[in-house]
Amino acid sequence: MTDEEKPFSLSRRSLLGGTAKVAALAGVGAAAGSSVTAFRSDTSEAALISRANAAEAGAKGVVAPGDLDDYYGFWSSGQSGEVRIFGVPSMRELIRIPVFNYCGATGWGTTNESKKILTEGLLPETREYLKDKGGMFLNGDAHHPHMSFTDGTYDGRYLFINDKANSRIARIRCDIMRTDKIIEIPNAADMHGMRPQKYPRTGYVFVNQEHRVPMPNDGSVLEDASKYRCVFTAVDGDAMEVAWQVLVDGNLDNTDCDYQGKYAFSTCYNAEQATDLAGMTEREQDWVVVFDIARIEEAVKKGDYTEMSGIPVVDGRKGSPYTRYIPVSNSPHGINTAPDGHYVAVNGKLSPTVTLLDVRRFPDLFDDKIEPRGAVAAEPELGLGPLHTAFDGKGNAFTTLFIDSQVAKWNMEKARQAYEGEEVDPITEKIDVAYQPGHNHTSMGETKEADGQWLVSLNKFSKDRFLNVGPLKPENDQLIDISGEGMALVHDAPTFAEPHDCIIVRRDLVNPLSVYSREDPMWEDARKWAEKDGVVLEDGSETVIRDGNKVRVYMYSIAPSFSLNEFKVKQGDEVTIFITNLDDIEDLTHGFTLTGYGVAMEIAPQATSSVTFVADRPGVHWYYCQFFCHALHMEMRGRMMVEPKSG
Amino acid sequence: MTDEEKPFSLSRRSLLGGTAKVAALAGVGAAAGSSVTAFRSDTSEAALISRANAAEAGAKGVVAPGDLDDYYGFWSSGQSGEVRIFGVPSMRELIRIPVFNYCGATGWGTTNESKKILTEGLLPETREYLKDKGGMFLNGDAHHPHMSFTDGTYDGRYLFINDKANSRIARIRCDIMRTDKIIEIPNAADMHGMRPQKYPRTGYVFVNQEHRVPMPNDGSVLEDASKYRCVFTAVDGDAMEVAWQVLVDGNLDNTDCDYQGKYAFSTCYNAEQATDLAGMTEREQDWVVVFDIARIEEAVKKGDYTEMSGIPVVDGRKGSPYTRYIPVSNSPHGINTAPDGHYVAVNGKLSPTVTLLDVRRFPDLFDDKIEPRGAVAAEPELGLGPLHTAFDGKGNAFTTLFIDSQVAKWNMEKARQAYEGEEVDPITEKIDVAYQPGHNHTSMGETKEADGQWLVSLNKFSKDRFLNVGPLKPENDQLIDISGEGMALVHDAPTFAEPHDCIIVRRDLVNPLSVYSREDPMWEDARKWAEKDGVVLEDGSETVIRDGNKVRVYMYSIAPSFSLNEFKVKQGDEVTIFITNLDDIEDLTHGFTLTGYGVAMEIAPQATSSVTFVADRPGVHWYYCQFFCHALHMEMRGRMMVEPKSG
Repeated sequence: MTDEEKPFSLSRRSLLGGTAKVAALAGVGAAAGSSVTAFRSDTSEAALISRANAAEAGAKGVVAPGDLDDYYGFWSSGQSGEVRIFGVPSMRELIRIPVFNYCGATGWGTTNESKKILTEGLLPETREYLKDKGGMFLNGDAHHPHMSFTDGTYDGRYLFINDKANSRIARIRCDIMRTDKIIEIPNAADMHGMRPQKYPRTGYVFVNQEHRVPMPNDGSVLEDASKYRCVFTAVDGDAMEVAWQVLVDGNLDNTDCDYQGKYAFSTCYNAEQATDLAGMTEREQDWVVVFDIARIEEAVKKGDYTEMSGIPVVDGRKGSPYTRYIPVSNSPHGINTAPDGHYVAVNGKLSPTVTLLDVRRFPDLFDDKIEPRGAVAAEPELGLGPLHTAFDGKGNAFTTLFIDSQVAKWNMEKARQAYEGEEVDPITEKIDVAYQPGHNHTSMGETKEADGQWLVSLNKFSKDRFLNVGPLKPENDQLIDISGEGMALVHDAPTFAEPHDCIIVRRDLVNPLSVYSREDPMWEDARKWAEKDGVVLEDGSETVIRDGNKVRVYMYSIAPSFSLNEFKVKQGDEVTIFITNLDDIEDLTHGFTLTGYGVAMEIAPQATSSVTFVADRPGVHWYYCQFFCHALHMEMRGRMMVEPKSG
Repeated sequence: MTDEEKPFSLSRRSLLGGTAKVAALAGVGAAAGSSVTAFRSDTSEAALISRANAAEAGAKGVVAPGDLDDYYGFWSSGQSGEVRIFGVPSMRELIRIPVFNYCGATGWGTTNESKKILTEGLLPETREYLKDKGGMFLNGDAHHPHMSFTDGTYDGRYLFINDKANSRIARIRCDIMRTDKIIEIPNAADMHGMRPQKYPRTGYVFVNQEHRVPMPNDGSVLEDASKYRCVFTAVDGDAMEVAWQVLVDGNLDNTDCDYQGKYAFSTCYNAEQATDLAGMTEREQDWVVVFDIARIEEAVKKGDYTEMSGIPVVDGRKGSPYTRYIPVSNSPHGINTAPDGHYVAVNGKLSPTVTLLDVRRFPDLFDDKIEPRGAVAAEPELGLGPLHTAFDGKGNAFTTLFIDSQVAKWNMEKARQAYEGEEVDPITEKIDVAYQPGHNHTSMGETKEADGQWLVSLNKFSKDRFLNVGPLKPENDQLIDISGEGMALVHDAPTFAEPHDCIIVRRDLVNPLSVYSREDPMWEDARKWAEKDGVVLEDGSETVIRDGNKVRVYMYSIAPSFSLNEFKVKQGDEVTIFITNLDDIEDLTHGFTLTGYGVAMEIAPQATSSVTFVADRPGVHWYYCQFFCHALHMEMRGRMMVEPKSG
């Protein structure tokens, strides 16, 4: 009998099975039942200690006007499609970075520069689908923002983020906080879990397909789920191209990797390969899939793969030398590597347990010296609905309990001792959160420099925690001080639909520019057009070039004026407007809004932005600067005059 | 010599003229020069008092986790096109309300319900322009959010907001915090200043055209600015239709109205009727235009108007019985009626003065018993770049000084005394703000219930006040405690591009629903389709109706599942999906994301949402709930199977 086929009976697993499942199904009822009044009228010792801690920690969470936050928080925004920068500990949203969304303020989805990024990485069949829809998706579902690593810690180069809705991965340049590459993942669907390689550097960005689909998904297979496929993908984060893929069993959920550069691993559910809820949760058991990076690279080198859409796809289904499937209870969710470099926490979701794997045992696992369950170092029972775990770098872990609406603090070494039969309780403390936490994150907590200062619990429901704003409520991202003995709630931060995850990065590791370099590749195309037209963008050239029915308008901006006060085109002309912001002062962004044409874009200091449209509407259309720039900002404008078609 | 032709020599006008203009032009240099270091190292008595006040007021600005804010703040978002709800005094952004933007999270711009609102109020020529562009504008420039009034104070029914980019006015229902009407204003362009009628109720929403354009703007007139026109518009806020328009001289900027229901008034610049900056600012003098509402209504009744696009347009140019033009210095900007019901502050912008008009003198003004300048009650010199004024309801006014980066607190009665020759200084205090303030607003400050608790200064530049987030910086909306003798800075709140204005509403006046009524008109069309198809949305019907190549799919959602686990259509079918959320629990919003199709929408508790698309892509496409709803949320999904076209 293999490890996997055994009934679950390990002494400390404490899988509640059916009970937990019932509780999970009732989870929303629990969410509805609690309330802020109940929360504050709780006079239990735990609640009183928690409130006392909060009062003491309050001062630590205050960032006075004019003072700077200690950390950059990078927040995903779920179906809003953007990335947000927060300040921690103030929990103020500092800025939005457009990614998978349409942003009228910055012109993301309007400018030629952004359209190129939003379209060039799409697959041919997607281009075909979008060709009469403006060529772009306007939505995305951004879940997991993670920074690039060098030697196990953040290096300030890039952020990466997935789009579950339209199967894409995006990269954000941290020098300018703008997305520079978006690619759609071939041979896959519905990208979910995503993490960058920690060591030696990023390197790879690992990403999970969540939903199994036929490959190719061209309609030749429809109902027969046994023919659906799921792949694990390694993206080359430097080239932003897919390096290789690995075919797996089940549905992949979240992913992480080690601090040694050897393994990646994903939670994997639906061992049943079903297509409905009852079927997917029928069995008591699913897996963690471990990927041996060196073996997979070797397989690609020696040709042990099938090529699909030009990508080497290695077969990593059960029994493959490239993967191992470690049995865990039904439907595990989050997976998080501890800063100690040894432990990996696998969160039970439908089981009240977290399974702690020890990566030091993975070589033996791949050499078949141990059974898959032999990689398990601990499996503490923490409470109902464990979803994600974060770390303080001092051996403690913090696990969100969705159904219990709590965060459990527990000690990994004690959990190992308990798993080995010692009489110790690994749980140190539980704190109530409001309500139903999903992801959580600690300051620097997914790096080897985890510093144990702050924990954010991203709670899915806010209900009565804020003024009622109508049927759609915000989420509630709570900031908790974990620097002392006890956890202390410091801030309730409302967030719009719907952050899934965040990271908290020490501020010295992030050093953005305030003024663009004129050499920035972002306006390489604009520069080429200017050269062709005998115009130099940087020297304040302003001119209108007619090229058949194509018109190129070059102008510059210096507060409070555009260099061109007016220009004239003919109805039906295809007009491209290039604007270079010659102001080189911090915070002096200009904008260009063309009224009645649905055109608006930002032009940051020393940037060039361009937009192309057909001048279909005759008459006088004013353009104006929509980023306040000067006492005479409202006077910064000009006229586009469109001569009507004769007849 | 009429009042208007006189050179400005009134004793207390103190118009700096040329000097102020030079300073204004240099404004951005001042912005660049200051810094947080300079701000905090300022040990002047004023600065120290300000900091001491801030320290004392700090506690008042803290809203502990679980406590509720005292006020709803409604913030515009400028070129982001949305409205935001803030909590005051915590300055937390509680939620976004989609209006003139595309919102992938809520499906605003995707659902049939939102598309109807975004398209039905457009003018025919705009529909024609947009017909191959998805039928909608995706951007807007939202400036001035204001709530409907009854008897001089907020009544919690509606919010109204303008779009300067595409000449629209939107209405938001405060029961559900969703936009229910958007209209494009005919015979006009580039709507800017906007305020609702205060008395007896809203009633009218007054709105200013900013840029002069030819009417009709069909290309028959292009360069000749002497033939351009500008109108003041009264929208019927109940019907959301234009009631009447008034032709004026110059460009209209901001607007407000009285507490008696008799007059509206707008700042008006470009008396020169020029089209460039030099021309527009050439003369030393512009106007406030006062509109006599009863006289205009009478003119409409008796037919003294020109009909344009079905709208009565009354001629209110200089010399008309319907308007009066009160001379003020060049380029006035904000105009704000004081809660006392008598004074109206006209902010000088290029002049360092605020002109205080007395509405009690307007009857004499219209009866030609006084010269236009006879309506002026005071004209204090406050500092460089006065843009907007707010009030505490105790006779004090707070004026933003853009160039000085300050807010000046001054007493209106003292200003009147000084204007009449007494030796009093109306200025009580100035506080530094960071940096370059535009609009400001006090708690309940534009109503007769102004309560003198809080002032928000919406500063256009933040520069070094927050962690550096790249070339595009946030604005800085600062909260100032005005309840005591001195003003005290409490919070620096970063905001995304780019709030122009806000209002602060006592929380007892706003009472939104948490769960929709099934009778809500928002899904009237869905209900009609269901009736036609023999389906009842509310009883959990689920069915797929084929009607030629049109397919209507009805399903419901109860956490954690959709009633339809799968459905099949043919490639090329026009598919409409109607989803009714049968959960009726607070905060239990579901979502529907169709992968690879660019489709996502929210379905709030007891709401119905629908989306129509062509099933162009063959194969298996999963749909899933993207608003976290349950421990088994990730399992809430189903399959759309698209049979490929044969051949």
